[in-house]
Amino acid sequence: MLEPAQTPAAAPTGVWLVGARGSVATTAVAGCAALEAGLLPPTGLLTETPPFAGSHLPALSSLVFGGHDTAGGVLTKRAEQLAAQGVLPHWLPGAVHGELTAADRRIRPGGPLPGDDRSPEELIAHFAADLRQFAADTGAARTVVVNVASTEPAPAPGAWPASSLYAAAALEAGCAYVNFTPSTGLRHPQLAQAARACGLPFAGRDGKTGQTLLRSVLAPMFHQRALEVRAWSGTNLLGGGDGAALADPAAAAAKNAGKERVLADSLGTLPQGTVHIDDVPVLGDWKTAWDHVAFDGFLGTRMVLQTIWQGCDSALAAPLVLDLARLLARAHEAGLSGPRPELGFYFKDPDGDAASLAEQYAALLAFADRLGESR
Amino acid sequence: MLEPAQTPAAAPTGVWLVGARGSVATTAVAGCAALEAGLLPPTGLLTETPPFAGSHLPALSSLVFGGHDTAGGVLTKRAEQLAAQGVLPHWLPGAVHGELTAADRRIRPGGPLPGDDRSPEELIAHFAADLRQFAADTGAARTVVVNVASTEPAPAPGAWPASSLYAAAALEAGCAYVNFTPSTGLRHPQLAQAARACGLPFAGRDGKTGQTLLRSVLAPMFHQRALEVRAWSGTNLLGGGDGAALADPAAAAAKNAGKERVLADSLGTLPQGTVHIDDVPVLGDWKTAWDHVAFDGFLGTRMVLQTIWQGCDSALAAPLVLDLARLLARAHEAGLSGPRPELGFYFKDPDGDAASLAEQYAALLAFADRLGESR
Amino acid sequence: MLEPAQTPAAAPTGVWLVGARGSVATTAVAGCAALEAGLLPPTGLLTETPPFAGSHLPALSSLVFGGHDTAGGVLTKRAEQLAAQGVLPHWLPGAVHGELTAADRRIRPGGPLPGDDRSPEELIAHFAADLRQFAADTGAARTVVVNVASTEPAPAPGAWPASSLYAAAALEAGCAYVNFTPSTGLRHPQLAQAARACGLPFAGRDGKTGQTLLRSVLAPMFHQRALEVRAWSGTNLLGGGDGAALADPAAAAAKNAGKERVLADSLGTLPQGTVHIDDVPVLGDWKTAWDHVAFDGFLGTRMVLQTIWQGCDSALAAPLVLDLARLLARAHEAGLSGPRPELGFYFKDPDGDAASLAEQYAALLAFADRLGESR
Amino acid sequence: MLEPAQTPAAAPTGVWLVGARGSVATTAVAGCAALEAGLLPPTGLLTETPPFAGSHLPALSSLVFGGHDTAGGVLTKRAEQLAAQGVLPHWLPGAVHGELTAADRRIRPGGPLPGDDRSPEELIAHFAADLRQFAADTGAARTVVVNVASTEPAPAPGAWPASSLYAAAALEAGCAYVNFTPSTGLRHPQLAQAARACGLPFAGRDGKTGQTLLRSVLAPMFHQRALEVRAWSGTNLLGGGDGAALADPAAAAAKNAGKERVLADSLGTLPQGTVHIDDVPVLGDWKTAWDHVAFDGFLGTRMVLQTIWQGCDSALAAPLVLDLARLLARAHEAGLSGPRPELGFYFKDPDGDAASLAEQYAALLAFADRLGESR
Repeated sequence: MLEPAQTPAAAPTGVWLVGARGSVATTAVAGCAALEAGLLPPTGLLTETPPFAGSHLPALSSLVFGGHDTAGGVLTKRAEQLAAQGVLPHWLPGAVHGELTAADRRIRPGGPLPGDDRSPEELIAHFAADLRQFAADTGAARTVVVNVASTEPAPAPGAWPASSLYAAAALEAGCAYVNFTPSTGLRHPQLAQAARACGLPFAGRDGKTGQTLLRSVLAPMFHQRALEVRAWSGTNLLGGGDGAALADPAAAAAKNAGKERVLADSLGTLPQGTVHIDDVPVLGDWKTAWDHVAFDGFLGTRMVLQTIWQGCDSALAAPLVLDLARLLARAHEAGLSGPRPELGFYFKDPDGDAASLAEQYAALLAFADRLGESR
Repeated sequence: MLEPAQTPAAAPTGVWLVGARGSVATTAVAGCAALEAGLLPPTGLLTETPPFAGSHLPALSSLVFGGHDTAGGVLTKRAEQLAAQGVLPHWLPGAVHGELTAADRRIRPGGPLPGDDRSPEELIAHFAADLRQFAADTGAARTVVVNVASTEPAPAPGAWPASSLYAAAALEAGCAYVNFTPSTGLRHPQLAQAARACGLPFAGRDGKTGQTLLRSVLAPMFHQRALEVRAWSGTNLLGGGDGAALADPAAAAAKNAGKERVLADSLGTLPQGTVHIDDVPVLGDWKTAWDHVAFDGFLGTRMVLQTIWQGCDSALAAPLVLDLARLLARAHEAGLSGPRPELGFYFKDPDGDAASLAEQYAALLAFADRLGESR
Repeated sequence: MLEPAQTPAAAPTGVWLVGARGSVATTAVAGCAALEAGLLPPTGLLTETPPFAGSHLPALSSLVFGGHDTAGGVLTKRAEQLAAQGVLPHWLPGAVHGELTAADRRIRPGGPLPGDDRSPEELIAHFAADLRQFAADTGAARTVVVNVASTEPAPAPGAWPASSLYAAAALEAGCAYVNFTPSTGLRHPQLAQAARACGLPFAGRDGKTGQTLLRSVLAPMFHQRALEVRAWSGTNLLGGGDGAALADPAAAAAKNAGKERVLADSLGTLPQGTVHIDDVPVLGDWKTAWDHVAFDGFLGTRMVLQTIWQGCDSALAAPLVLDLARLLARAHEAGLSGPRPELGFYFKDPDGDAASLAEQYAALLAFADRLGESR
Repeated sequence: MLEPAQTPAAAPTGVWLVGARGSVATTAVAGCAALEAGLLPPTGLLTETPPFAGSHLPALSSLVFGGHDTAGGVLTKRAEQLAAQGVLPHWLPGAVHGELTAADRRIRPGGPLPGDDRSPEELIAHFAADLRQFAADTGAARTVVVNVASTEPAPAPGAWPASSLYAAAALEAGCAYVNFTPSTGLRHPQLAQAARACGLPFAGRDGKTGQTLLRSVLAPMFHQRALEVRAWSGTNLLGGGDGAALADPAAAAAKNAGKERVLADSLGTLPQGTVHIDDVPVLGDWKTAWDHVAFDGFLGTRMVLQTIWQGCDSALAAPLVLDLARLLARAHEAGLSGPRPELGFYFKDPDGDAASLAEQYAALLAFADRLGESR
């Protein structure tokens, strides 16, 4: 039996974005404001579709945004840059200037930057204090921390990557947590015990926005038709911060592990083939993913499927971030805790084990129903 | 409660192919023989995967083939032509020469050819007699009639297209029936009553082998992610008999209706866009299908997915034909009758209403279990 | 020996656009103004590259625009629509508002519209009077008429299509003429004599902007490598006015004839394959062209090249229109007359016979030199 | 004035293949025999097209093959493997068994293998002796050495890579030399003096068979249209020996340098973008190359061209090897020496400076004429 919804309608829900000045965060904040104001329809936002109507999710208008970032700059400027690239409609930054400025004021310095000699414990305490101050300032009944920062290289054994410091701070401040990146976050060995004990819900890892989303429907198709995939190769071209971060082979390795997991889980074996992620700055936030699948059919006949996905990374990620924040906020309110495998629909490397998008969607709809039960 | 399986292990099951000298039929006969002999693994044959192990399906080695065709020629020759195109391994026609010859001897003249002035009733009676003779000759406990002939133009109102004559003959001879083409077959208004009353199981329409198979996983993906598909365009290039038949706009119209159904059912609306089917004789049995999907994401951002499917039509269709023959033969044995929506997995324009491949697969697995219950 | 350049530097050159409110015309006018003002670099404008520096072409700043159109509306509005689609930078319509308004004032009603019962002779006289008035109003030393109207269906024998009325008016008013469309224009049998006698230079037919541009380099490559092209298939998706016009099979036939000519000329034979032009309104002015080329290599090995061209039709056409207007104005000044095969580089169905882009480019550079000789 | 052709019609011309048991060599030997016997048309063989009819090239029937290889095995077996992959028609190995066996007997062990402690001088002398013995055995009037071995990693400074040992042996034995690979070959600093002094013609480097062939017509197209290429990215998938060799980053670096040269030469600048070469063993000798070109058009409008090339590497390379052997044999006979920039048409990294295929083709045709002059 879930906890009933106790939050008065007007109480805000906090969304704390780690990487708050990045493209995804900026798009999420600007887009939420645009939808609230009725300027655009809620395309891409699953939580605004009928199956979620009875789930008692916090309204878009109740979300308040803050976050950490190691970079400076102002959100209004960042939004204008995104509009110049065609990621946002060119008139949008002007129309939601107030909301961007409000979120901007609630961004606190992230860390650690080079030269910062605070211990992991000190940093965690500092970040947790930022979260508590945000709740106090905004009156948020609860806050969901969402990691949308650039992908980290895999950490050395025993080290504390920044993503895990933020995750630890979330637990310490009593916040639900989402890891939308392939970084370590809450999956740090030294956080395992705290994660079990915290009584908070969390979800991850690595948002499934483009090439892997496609793979999560295509790989089951091959499997269901008993077609034998022999090689699955892919190349991603993108600019923006993500392109540069993933040009680091160590960071790309973390991302590719998630991509491979979908294939291995769906096909029962990992076919030949490599995935490349190329930094092509002139493409900005626009990503092109080419996939080449060589498969054998009846009597060993070789056939080929190729896909070309041309998407805008931030526009694909931002609505999923809003969805996850709303779903975890409601899960928190309803007293659910621990990893939420029902949210595997959103992730490349989910906490549960289903790799087929169709099964994940069914699990998500069941979760939507469950969240609605207690009122 | 299903009827128990009564057929002694050794009793053959008949597979009667309408269009028995076409590429699909030839590939099915040659392939079945190759698998029986252990010459090749059963790639693409769903009924040889573990979920069907307990379904009491007739063994591949128990299948005997015959059929109708208006064209002459010999199957061994046809198989050699397919091998020269790379559709069959070049050594296969020689290795299964005996089985091809045996099937060839059981092919009867189809019809009506121009100048044939027999009435529909006479033709139906003639075809039904062929079916009864086949059963008598082979000792088949039961026979499944499968239409794999070239696509017909949509018939004039009140006319009897050939596909419906064969379907009527199947009912008259007590045979289960599969329509693997977009032709009318059993969906003729004057067969509706007989179909309801016959006590035989049947399935159709129009095998889902390439572009539409892809669409049946991609369209649900867009829907599940609340992405708005604005246009879905496609071009198919193929040679072979199918390419020539579908160059007739009337025949293509029948096929395209099925393709559009998948989109309309999955997306809730039919987006802009056209599907072309071009006859390119030099491509032979190799089909290339290009799809272009323009969709809107968050904040109206326009994105594009393109897919290129390069497959061998006969190699894609033949294992599905064998699957369907085995499944319907067992359904017949188990006393099931009427349309089998559980087989929607195989069709563009199925008898049931699910358009998502994932749901259709789940329904098929449940059917596999049900077929196994009664022993 | 060419005529020396006699026009004083400040004398304007007229550019009269038939279809003056269409996307191509609007983009040409807005773009010319943007380049004059130094707001953007002259990408895509060949006549601003070094080989043309000495050709004594009229300066961009000396061009004045007018035209005919049967549609109403205002250019500033049209430019805003194009900016909303991303064809023009969103700030451009505002920045060149004055130039758009000036051109707008010089647009005269085209024709004939349904119900107009003027004879061809009357219409030609009327259009020629518009051209003379334009010259008088602007002081243009000479004017080049450029047809950028929607493609017409092939005319009935003996009929006067609108494009030929405008072409006749150009000759009558002493204007050089460019047919950037596949419509009949000056290639009307009843204009042959006048075209020979007029002493004016002209060029056409059907601007080569996308798929055919590609074909004009790829087809020679296959030929030069002795690779045997067996089938060349293609599909074009586009919205905008052009998509709708070309959804008319008669109009598409005119366009496709030009596309096929490039293949036949380059390959020495016309391979199998069809070209489709689909109207997909949601794509607006953005065109996607997919080509599939099946070719045989050494020992008959079958190979495939596919190309996907995603371009903006107006942005591809507009600089060619400016190039052609400048080149023909200078040719006129230099005393050249008749068809100019040196401009085959710009056309699908040129007056000369070279189909290879490389040869056409060499001929164009030689023409640029020749235009520079006489000063 | 060239030397007249002195070789009696019946005198054989030697073709010595370094890497004589590889796919390219096997295809060249088997294909030459098939063409001689009239079993297949000479598709892909430029030297059999009309422009070369008067060039006094050695007849295909006069070519005799031998070579070096470090690998064992027999050519007939190798040909059967290629036929099983569809690289050769399945009946071809049987039909040309005699010619394959004859070539096989003239293959000598290459080197150095690990553990071989002969000095470079000793190896060169040994290889040169093999070449002289081949000439003596076959009565070849002259021999062309063609390197078709797997790509080497770039050598350490001062080291002697194997390709340079073979090149040095060619000079010492008085043989014309072709480097069809990106390996060092004759471009070794210590061979510069000998290459100048030897009086022999030579050509290279790195056969232009697929992706780079395309780039050599597409890059000039962008340049000629004043379109600004901003990024050119590419991925190659292939199996076979070449895929494995190029999975070594050092070997790939040599290859990619040639690919980049075409872009830099044609565009005047090197755009953003990376080229990947992936080893995908299941693809065998079939290569897929995807290219993505992001370019700016008029007013900075971003557009994209993508190409997908699906070819058989050996079938693309083998006719070029035969062409080059014939052309260099004739050049040798005619008294020409030194690098032959007229053969840039065949290479990624040619001795001359033209990067446009069209200019290279014109130069090649002029060379064909020149070779014909002296009789």
